[in-house]
Amino acid sequence: MNPEQREQLISSAKLGMKNAYAVVSGFPVGAAVLTSAGKVFQGCATESVISGMGVCAERSAIDHAVACGEYLFDAVAVISELEEPIAPCGMCLQYIGEFSQVADHDIEILMIGATDEIRESSIRQMLPVIFGPLDLGLDVTRYRR
Amino acid sequence: MNPEQREQLISSAKLGMKNAYAVVSGFPVGAAVLTSAGKVFQGCATESVISGMGVCAERSAIDHAVACGEYLFDAVAVISELEEPIAPCGMCLQYIGEFSQVADHDIEILMIGATDEIRESSIRQMLPVIFGPLDLGLDVTRYRR
Amino acid sequence: MNPEQREQLISSAKLGMKNAYAVVSGFPVGAAVLTSAGKVFQGCATESVISGMGVCAERSAIDHAVACGEYLFDAVAVISELEEPIAPCGMCLQYIGEFSQVADHDIEILMIGATDEIRESSIRQMLPVIFGPLDLGLDVTRYRR
Amino acid sequence: MNPEQREQLISSAKLGMKNAYAVVSGFPVGAAVLTSAGKVFQGCATESVISGMGVCAERSAIDHAVACGEYLFDAVAVISELEEPIAPCGMCLQYIGEFSQVADHDIEILMIGATDEIRESSIRQMLPVIFGPLDLGLDVTRYRR
Repeated sequence: MNPEQREQLISSAKLGMKNAYAVVSGFPVGAAVLTSAGKVFQGCATESVISGMGVCAERSAIDHAVACGEYLFDAVAVISELEEPIAPCGMCLQYIGEFSQVADHDIEILMIGATDEIRESSIRQMLPVIFGPLDLGLDVTRYRR
Repeated sequence: MNPEQREQLISSAKLGMKNAYAVVSGFPVGAAVLTSAGKVFQGCATESVISGMGVCAERSAIDHAVACGEYLFDAVAVISELEEPIAPCGMCLQYIGEFSQVADHDIEILMIGATDEIRESSIRQMLPVIFGPLDLGLDVTRYRR
Repeated sequence: MNPEQREQLISSAKLGMKNAYAVVSGFPVGAAVLTSAGKVFQGCATESVISGMGVCAERSAIDHAVACGEYLFDAVAVISELEEPIAPCGMCLQYIGEFSQVADHDIEILMIGATDEIRESSIRQMLPVIFGPLDLGLDVTRYRR
Repeated sequence: MNPEQREQLISSAKLGMKNAYAVVSGFPVGAAVLTSAGKVFQGCATESVISGMGVCAERSAIDHAVACGEYLFDAVAVISELEEPIAPCGMCLQYIGEFSQVADHDIEILMIGATDEIRESSIRQMLPVIFGPLDLGLDVTRYRR
């Protein structure tokens, strides 16, 4: 990820946050993903009144990219209104982890606080044991083109 | 929905289907939503190896629109490779139903078969009893601007 | 469902409601299922702070029964503290609908208000179009023993 | 966890596996939880044909305990038919992590292979950063009685 891509990723996450559908919690969260081809897709929390529905911003950003035909990710950024950078939840880590098997490499994770403090980690650090499509012997090669 | 919008909605759903991440089932599904402002957003099935993860094409399309700041939907289209038009599952109907409360009107549902047979219905027909944000007294007006 | 079973089903749903883990909403919901063999299993809302996690009471009751080796259901009851009987959401209807394909018959749904008003319906009435394992050609016979 | 409890936890996970509703994958998984009061509850994978529905065995076991009014867990065990012990997915780790905040202590995780090889870890090791109800300032004390 070069500095320009990094800036674009962070800007998109902020833009995503503005669009969050935080109808239940009133707590907006935004995210963005950077693809291996250098494209950026934004996402946001989309809540539901039902337990088990709705998506976090990180999964929303990934789904956005997938809907546009992109499956290979280099980095994910997430931001909320909290001063402290927030971390992806385990459910989002699982999702990112599955796509790290598709990409066949680690995926950077940028956690951004409201005052622009940035904490950096990666999926392999945050979810040391990843269970994904490869563990079930599924063929992911057609998503690697 | 005018004829041109309808064509665009159907085309987007087909485009979405091409992008489906059907890594588990090998069964691609695409969808699209038409906003009240006349914009169209595509979506696709994005599967996971984990029970309780992944999204159907319809929810993916809605999340795509929300990530771009659109919350008011007039129609949803869904398509698969089956000759017979497929219907949104109950989980997607729930999601569409919640947004029909935001929109404050019924939402059309177009189900498209592989040979372009189209079945038409609406959220109020397919999910006669809708439980959504209004039933919990939540404020959805800020998403109606 | 005979009167005794009905009483037991309603009592179990009430017991489930007492156990609800409503840590986010503070809105407890309980449920119970009656198996074709006449057994009753209770369930309750189990919430999460994460969008896309947690389960509604109805799915909790079904999962409880499945964990005990029961897959064939005749009736589901749901209750909350609201005076008005509440209806299962579309996501729970989808789940009940899938198991109605396993049972190969309709499943009764009892919706109970806080003052014991009961509304009765069934999965085929509440979710007129059911998409389930049979539509994918999956073998459910081993769960019908 | 004393040796007797450990044996009971493992036995329950095996019993859960026998009950798995693995209608889609044909890959049964079982689990069990040990409460701080020494009770054991079994769970199993309960699959759905819909992306975003169904539960893993670990969440099923927790939901089972919650449905019976238990919220404080000391250990979770998970087992499949694979020789190699399988690990909880990130989504289940998230769920276990939320309940570790309720319990206010770490939760042991036993991963069991088909030939009884057991790998041991804990939620704090497997999900180093936990985001749960305490991070949102929610009151969990009523579930600690």
